[in-house]
Amino acid sequence: MDKKTACAHVPEPSEFEYTTRDAIIYALGVGARAKEDLSYVYENDEDFKVLPSFIVAPGFQAHTLMDWPGVEFDLQKVLHGEQYIEVLHPLPAEGKLKSEARVVDILDKGSGALILGNVTTFDENGRKVAIQQFSTFQTGSGNFGGDRTSPHEFKAATVPDRAPDAVIEQKTSVDQAALYRLGSGDMNPLHVDPQFAKMSGFKTPILHGLCSLGFATRHVIAAWAGNDSNKFKAIKVRFSSPVLPGQTLVTETWKTGNRIVFQMKVKETGKVVISNAYVDLLEASELPTVPVDLIAKL
Amino acid sequence: MDKKTACAHVPEPSEFEYTTRDAIIYALGVGARAKEDLSYVYENDEDFKVLPSFIVAPGFQAHTLMDWPGVEFDLQKVLHGEQYIEVLHPLPAEGKLKSEARVVDILDKGSGALILGNVTTFDENGRKVAIQQFSTFQTGSGNFGGDRTSPHEFKAATVPDRAPDAVIEQKTSVDQAALYRLGSGDMNPLHVDPQFAKMSGFKTPILHGLCSLGFATRHVIAAWAGNDSNKFKAIKVRFSSPVLPGQTLVTETWKTGNRIVFQMKVKETGKVVISNAYVDLLEASELPTVPVDLIAKL
Repeated sequence: MDKKTACAHVPEPSEFEYTTRDAIIYALGVGARAKEDLSYVYENDEDFKVLPSFIVAPGFQAHTLMDWPGVEFDLQKVLHGEQYIEVLHPLPAEGKLKSEARVVDILDKGSGALILGNVTTFDENGRKVAIQQFSTFQTGSGNFGGDRTSPHEFKAATVPDRAPDAVIEQKTSVDQAALYRLGSGDMNPLHVDPQFAKMSGFKTPILHGLCSLGFATRHVIAAWAGNDSNKFKAIKVRFSSPVLPGQTLVTETWKTGNRIVFQMKVKETGKVVISNAYVDLLEASELPTVPVDLIAKL
Repeated sequence: MDKKTACAHVPEPSEFEYTTRDAIIYALGVGARAKEDLSYVYENDEDFKVLPSFIVAPGFQAHTLMDWPGVEFDLQKVLHGEQYIEVLHPLPAEGKLKSEARVVDILDKGSGALILGNVTTFDENGRKVAIQQFSTFQTGSGNFGGDRTSPHEFKAATVPDRAPDAVIEQKTSVDQAALYRLGSGDMNPLHVDPQFAKMSGFKTPILHGLCSLGFATRHVIAAWAGNDSNKFKAIKVRFSSPVLPGQTLVTETWKTGNRIVFQMKVKETGKVVISNAYVDLLEASELPTVPVDLIAKL
């Protein structure tokens, strides 16, 4: 790992064009349901909205560590460690986005290196619509004499020492990862190819961490924001254990003002799969005044 | 209904471009599974194939009865009656297709009119890859003095008077129609919009008939052709009753030479939903020699 070279690299902005269909495929990929979540899966619903976590699709495309100068990258040894997303304006029903990716730090964790990659996304008018940070753990690339912590990291949350205020449970489909990859553009074979999964040390393909993040986003918005994604502001998660497609996700939430602290467990195993997480909701007065651009009715 | 005008109309050929991702979304839409059907849902599988029934996507786009001269069309009173598909060459992993649609007959069934619409589809080299016939029932448009039968109809099959030779059962997802519409391009609100479904006389949105056809195609290929879709030649179905997303499809099959006669029931109700149906499989000597164009490996 060569932090100086990696942080100095300024790639071309990444262009991402999406249709309403793409946004709906993503929504179904993170478990949105035809009945309860019509406004995320039916383009002519009068409240049609794009899930804010869809911003990971342009983010993932822009965040191309595979060819990043100064970064050692091995697809079979890479793990998604943490993710931060902050959405400044609701995403339009379809559009063209431009994303700027930067590596802002590389931490030395001994057993591996943690690469902090920021992505800033703009709409067609040059307006900043979202920022996010991918924290990527490269196993075996540690001990290069780097720092263990960084001022660029977004702080994790601590789960309160009391029973959750609301618990949301949803079973994933055994085909969840096969669909999510098409919705998100994260085509890593780890999530669908049994042979590749075995070579990476897993018995079977695992669900994308960002897919669980999408479920969590939906769960918190449904439980605490009347299922109105325009009230979503930010999310921060730590991926602590893999999820297998078909397992049941249990999102335990605690309300602390406008911050919903949460963790996610797998029901079948009791394991925590997302830890130290939170979603920030907007204050009523902060709600966006710019309406979502709805596509024409039939 | 004005049969003469309708049959004389020659619309511009319809162009349809699809990616491997589109073909996979379709496959997931008709219940292909990540584990058992990897060759239909993972673009880098060494046996990757496009399901032959995907041809309904360009067919549906070409078959635009809504604006067809001589045809009375009311989206809220239209039912898909029957479908015939014959695939002459396996579909490439991605490609551009051109389809020619014709109305070949309009039958007077008293309570409504049955419109026979043929679609012939060609690949980029002008090679004919498929023919199909949509039989569309327009309720309330009968009694116009037309014939009750037509030489253009494809003959239905009769189920043998014995127990089925093989039965394939698969539960659909409650979100099956929401996904299928994106994979097929059939965006009729009947399949997702509860209000529209009610106005059309259904309690809730119903599954697309062609989605059930896709499940049937997969079931027969899995049971009788070693899950090798290149052995598929043709399918003919009659849609006899609607399916609700979430219900369990039971495909009862009888082998009669290379013709697999079948019907489909809904397990929860026992109702026959596809009747008088068959799939024709190729003889070994008829197997296509033209390989599927596979996209580049990662």
